[in-house]
Amino acid sequence: METRDLSVVGGTGDFFMARGIVTFKTVESMNKNKKLAKPCKTLTLYFHDIIYDGTNSGNATSAIVAAPAWANRTTLSGLMHFGDVVVFDDPITTDNNLHSPAVGRAQGLYLYDRKEVFTSWLGFSFVFNSTEHKGTLNFIGADPLMEKTREVSVVGGTGDFFMSRGVATLMTDAFEGSVYFRLRVDIKLYECY
Amino acid sequence: METRDLSVVGGTGDFFMARGIVTFKTVESMNKNKKLAKPCKTLTLYFHDIIYDGTNSGNATSAIVAAPAWANRTTLSGLMHFGDVVVFDDPITTDNNLHSPAVGRAQGLYLYDRKEVFTSWLGFSFVFNSTEHKGTLNFIGADPLMEKTREVSVVGGTGDFFMSRGVATLMTDAFEGSVYFRLRVDIKLYECY
Amino acid sequence: METRDLSVVGGTGDFFMARGIVTFKTVESMNKNKKLAKPCKTLTLYFHDIIYDGTNSGNATSAIVAAPAWANRTTLSGLMHFGDVVVFDDPITTDNNLHSPAVGRAQGLYLYDRKEVFTSWLGFSFVFNSTEHKGTLNFIGADPLMEKTREVSVVGGTGDFFMSRGVATLMTDAFEGSVYFRLRVDIKLYECY
Repeated sequence: METRDLSVVGGTGDFFMARGIVTFKTVESMNKNKKLAKPCKTLTLYFHDIIYDGTNSGNATSAIVAAPAWANRTTLSGLMHFGDVVVFDDPITTDNNLHSPAVGRAQGLYLYDRKEVFTSWLGFSFVFNSTEHKGTLNFIGADPLMEKTREVSVVGGTGDFFMSRGVATLMTDAFEGSVYFRLRVDIKLYECY
Repeated sequence: METRDLSVVGGTGDFFMARGIVTFKTVESMNKNKKLAKPCKTLTLYFHDIIYDGTNSGNATSAIVAAPAWANRTTLSGLMHFGDVVVFDDPITTDNNLHSPAVGRAQGLYLYDRKEVFTSWLGFSFVFNSTEHKGTLNFIGADPLMEKTREVSVVGGTGDFFMSRGVATLMTDAFEGSVYFRLRVDIKLYECY
Repeated sequence: METRDLSVVGGTGDFFMARGIVTFKTVESMNKNKKLAKPCKTLTLYFHDIIYDGTNSGNATSAIVAAPAWANRTTLSGLMHFGDVVVFDDPITTDNNLHSPAVGRAQGLYLYDRKEVFTSWLGFSFVFNSTEHKGTLNFIGADPLMEKTREVSVVGGTGDFFMSRGVATLMTDAFEGSVYFRLRVDIKLYECY
């Protein structure tokens, strides 16, 4: 139907208690209001990555599993580590201390995808296992490491985070050579159930 | 606007046919009701993975394509297969019989990401090609294999599953050594178009 | 509550200005109307992939980083490149000319996942950096290359594309041997903020 009549069922101010009808024309869209968007849940967490370098198998939480033809799997490659793919199982903590009790694990992969500057791409999950939270949050997105803050998408969740969507802001909180880094993750969920 | 007036346009019970106005204050959020959420579509499917082991190239549906420095690509690695990345193209069936007609293919990657216990991470698509369904569903999430049921996110879809979102519950329905496994997937979509 | 009373607060046509009550029974769901869905934003972009072949390190934008046991990382494998995983950082242009100014980078991974026909799977981001757009769009999905058009999911976004969801149609616009290809991407966002 090109146009439709709707009811005016009440009013306020100048239109106090008014009733009547109004004619509408369709403009379908799912535009929501970005400016008014407020998170339905926020979380700040840290995760800690210790990459295997050939000598630290005891405490490494990640390992290079793929690399371009010119590189190997015990040393991050030249050319800004371009092409290195890392699988990780990193502890998540609520503060910046690697030795704090883990509230879950960050699991998945990251890869370095640029030759000119350090840039990575992430596909991973937060798997929560604490008194406060059970369930998972799933993330994907680009991570241009040299910028102070970077944003990835929260594309879904399960358990306590059933069907969640949002945005996570990543900040490099610390790094030590090419073996250890710590990311601060500010999660803002804008769709919750 | 800090507060706004809205119309009360009718009532039931004690407020039968009442009219008036009410003053609102903004609390923006996209909270939906998890307890009341009911799927708009459910599907139960099985997919079957036969991993290449150096001898079965004829009927293998998947292959190890990346592994840590200490491992190779014809045998799943020690340390709970940590770091092994597998690319797959697995038949999807509506029952648990590998030889039933395939209604589509499960395609993508899985990787093992923990040294202490079998845990994997998945990024994949169901590509449907049957009289009943055309289109795709896209999944990501963590898969702690040793738990009876695990949940991953359905993050999008195309065709018959245009813009779908939901949760998929994975169950290991069978496995034979490290070469064959079958997953049962209970898909519940909570957002459909 | 099994049933609830709602107000009828006005009408049009035969029911002009009518009021009353109606009794409802719950059928919860998030069914939206696929047929009426209209994009809240559309974009057509091209991205250009030049794969490293052992000789072109200067201008390659991607590299094979993983491959099955029977293949290597400088030549796409036989069996329809099954199992090859490629990391990429490809320029995005608004027309089909590789040498046009890039409005951003397509970054992430693709892999070939079928032995019988060319089929790939993609997980990647568009990272925009132009006067027109800042921010990212995140994609995953299956890409059956031999079909004229293929659809993947837009599962999230950041910046100008905050919380976006939609569908992207991929078309192979050109390819030269196994070293260069160009994809046309028609993006239709159905959820915007």
